[in-house]
Amino acid sequence: MLNIKPLGDRVLIEPMSDEDKAKQSKGGILIPDTADKEKPMEGKVIAVGDGKILENGKLQPLSVKVGDKVLFSKYGPTEIKVDDKEYLIAKEEDILGIIL
Amino acid sequence: MLNIKPLGDRVLIEPMSDEDKAKQSKGGILIPDTADKEKPMEGKVIAVGDGKILENGKLQPLSVKVGDKVLFSKYGPTEIKVDDKEYLIAKEEDILGIIL
Amino acid sequence: MLNIKPLGDRVLIEPMSDEDKAKQSKGGILIPDTADKEKPMEGKVIAVGDGKILENGKLQPLSVKVGDKVLFSKYGPTEIKVDDKEYLIAKEEDILGIIL
Amino acid sequence: MLNIKPLGDRVLIEPMSDEDKAKQSKGGILIPDTADKEKPMEGKVIAVGDGKILENGKLQPLSVKVGDKVLFSKYGPTEIKVDDKEYLIAKEEDILGIIL
Amino acid sequence: MLNIKPLGDRVLIEPMSDEDKAKQSKGGILIPDTADKEKPMEGKVIAVGDGKILENGKLQPLSVKVGDKVLFSKYGPTEIKVDDKEYLIAKEEDILGIIL
Amino acid sequence: MLNIKPLGDRVLIEPMSDEDKAKQSKGGILIPDTADKEKPMEGKVIAVGDGKILENGKLQPLSVKVGDKVLFSKYGPTEIKVDDKEYLIAKEEDILGIIL
Amino acid sequence: MLNIKPLGDRVLIEPMSDEDKAKQSKGGILIPDTADKEKPMEGKVIAVGDGKILENGKLQPLSVKVGDKVLFSKYGPTEIKVDDKEYLIAKEEDILGIIL
Repeated sequence: MLNIKPLGDRVLIEPMSDEDKAKQSKGGILIPDTADKEKPMEGKVIAVGDGKILENGKLQPLSVKVGDKVLFSKYGPTEIKVDDKEYLIAKEEDILGIIL
Repeated sequence: MLNIKPLGDRVLIEPMSDEDKAKQSKGGILIPDTADKEKPMEGKVIAVGDGKILENGKLQPLSVKVGDKVLFSKYGPTEIKVDDKEYLIAKEEDILGIIL
Repeated sequence: MLNIKPLGDRVLIEPMSDEDKAKQSKGGILIPDTADKEKPMEGKVIAVGDGKILENGKLQPLSVKVGDKVLFSKYGPTEIKVDDKEYLIAKEEDILGIIL
Repeated sequence: MLNIKPLGDRVLIEPMSDEDKAKQSKGGILIPDTADKEKPMEGKVIAVGDGKILENGKLQPLSVKVGDKVLFSKYGPTEIKVDDKEYLIAKEEDILGIIL
Repeated sequence: MLNIKPLGDRVLIEPMSDEDKAKQSKGGILIPDTADKEKPMEGKVIAVGDGKILENGKLQPLSVKVGDKVLFSKYGPTEIKVDDKEYLIAKEEDILGIIL
Repeated sequence: MLNIKPLGDRVLIEPMSDEDKAKQSKGGILIPDTADKEKPMEGKVIAVGDGKILENGKLQPLSVKVGDKVLFSKYGPTEIKVDDKEYLIAKEEDILGIIL
Repeated sequence: MLNIKPLGDRVLIEPMSDEDKAKQSKGGILIPDTADKEKPMEGKVIAVGDGKILENGKLQPLSVKVGDKVLFSKYGPTEIKVDDKEYLIAKEEDILGIIL
C-alpha cells in the first residue's frame, strides 16, 4: 500500500496499465487519440483527502472513494513515482466520472 | 447501457448521428457551418451526475435528465470512446437547451 | 413554434429581419456600423429558461419574457438553424434592454 | 421619448453634444485629450434598469436616476442609434460620478 | 467648489501641485522616479461617494473623508479637467494611505 | 530551530536533501524528471501559520502540522536562506499530500 | 515617526538596511539571489491599516502589528520616499511571515 495521504480535495490515483485495459476487451472504455482534445485517462483511486473546506468553514467530503475506477483529465493531475511505479495526485474536479 | 457515472454537475451524452438527423427531416435543428462561431451539437443524455455542490454545502441537482435530447457547446465537453462508439462528458453549463 | 427549451438563464431569440426593420421607419432603432464597437442586435424572445440558480440554491427567474423585443450583444449568443431559419440562444446577461 | 427599457443594472444615456458643452462656458467639465488614458464622457440618463440582482436574490436598485447628468467611462457602454441620434447603454459601474 | 458627486466607492481627488510639495520641505513625502514601479501620487480628497454595496446588499461607507490628504496609485484613477484644472476620480482601493 | 512564523495559511518547509532520500531506499517517493510537468518536491513542515481567514471572518486552521513530511508543488513556494540553508514558505494549497 | 496611515489591509514597512543585516551575523535570514524566483525582502512594520472589510461588512483586523519584523514579497508593495528614506506600503497578503 502507498504511504501518501492526499490533502483536501485531492485523490491519489493509480493509472490503469495497458495490460489492464487489454483484459477489458468488451465494454472497455477507449480514449480517442485526437491531439487537439484534452484526453481523459483511466485509473483506480487508492487514497482520498478529507475533503474541501467551503467558504462557510464546513468540510465537504469527496464523492469518490478508495477503490473507485475513474476517468480523469490528463492535464490537471501531478505525477509522482514510488518504487518505479507512476501514480497521480488529482483534484476531485479533474475527475470526470466513475466507471461502474 | 454505458457503465459510466458522471461526477458532480457533469452529464454523459451520446452525440446524434447524421442518420438520426436525416430522419428529422421537418422541424429538425441544423447548426450553421460558420467557422468563426462556436457551433453547438445535438445529443441524448444517457447518464447524469448527482449535481453541483454549492458554496453553502447543499447539493443542487441537475435540471437535465436521462433521455433528454440536448443542444450543447462543441468545445466544452470531453470525448470518450466505448466499444468504438463516441460519447461526451459535459458540464451542465455547456448545455444550451433541451429539444422538446 | 420552435421546439427548444433554453437551459437556466438562457433565452431563445428570433433575430429581426431587415424587412421587419424597414416597417419600423420612424422611431426605429439603428445600430451604427462601427467596426471597433460591439454592435447590438434586435430580436424577439420566443422561449426562456427557468432562471439562474444562485449560490444559495434559489432559482432567480429571468426578467425578460416570451414576446419581448430585445436589444442584445452580437458576440455572446450562439447561432442555431431550424428549417433554414436562424435563431440565437443567449444568456440573459447578453441582453442590453427591452424595446417597448 | 426613447422606447428602450435597459435591463438589470444598465442605464440609457444621451451623450452631451458639443453645443451643450459650449453653453457650459464657466464651471464646465472638460475631459483632457490624452491618448493613453481612458477618457470619461458626459451625458444625461434617460432610462434606468430595475437594478442588479445580488447573490442573495435581492434586487439592488440603481443609485442614478432619470435626468441625472453623469460622467461615464468611454469604453464600457454600447452605442445604439435611434432616428439618427446616438445613445449609449451603460452598466452603472461604468458611471464615475454625477454632475450636480 | 467642484460640482461632482463620485458614484459608489469612488472619490474625487485634487492632485497636489509641485508648489504645495515645495512648501512641505521637511517631512514631506517624495515618490521615487523609478520607471519599472507603479508610482503613487499625493492629493486631497474633495468629494466622496456613498460607499460600496456589498453582496449582502448593505452599504459600506468609505473610510476616507473630504479633506483627507492621500497617497494613491497613479494608474487606477481617471483624469478629468474642470476650468483648466486637473482632478482625478479614484476607487477607494486605489488609495494606499492617508497622510496625517 | 528557525525563528520564522509563517503568516495565515502559509507553512515553512525544510526541503528534503538527496542524502535523506538515499536513506529511503525502499518505499521512497521519487519525482519523475519530466520537463513538461510541474514536479512536486518533498520536505518537512517546521512551522505553520494560524490559518486562513474565511469570508465569514472565521479562522480556518491548517490541516498540516509541524513535523509532517509533505509533497508540495515546486513552483508556488518562495525560497529563503537562513545560515546558508534553504527553506521554503508555501501556501497550504501548494501542498499535495502528506507522506505517512 | 512617519506620518502615514495605511488604508484597509495595508501596512507601512521600513525595509531593513544592509547594515542591519550585517549585525545579524548568526541566525540571520538571507534571501538567495536567483533571478527566476520572486525574492522576499525583510523589513519592520511601522504602521498598519484598520483591516480588511469582508463581504459580510465586518472588519477583519490585521495579524501583523507595529514593530513586527517581516519577510515580504518584493514585487507586490509600492515604494515611497520620505526625507530621502525609502519605505514600502504592502498589502498584508504580500507578507510571508514574521521573524521572531
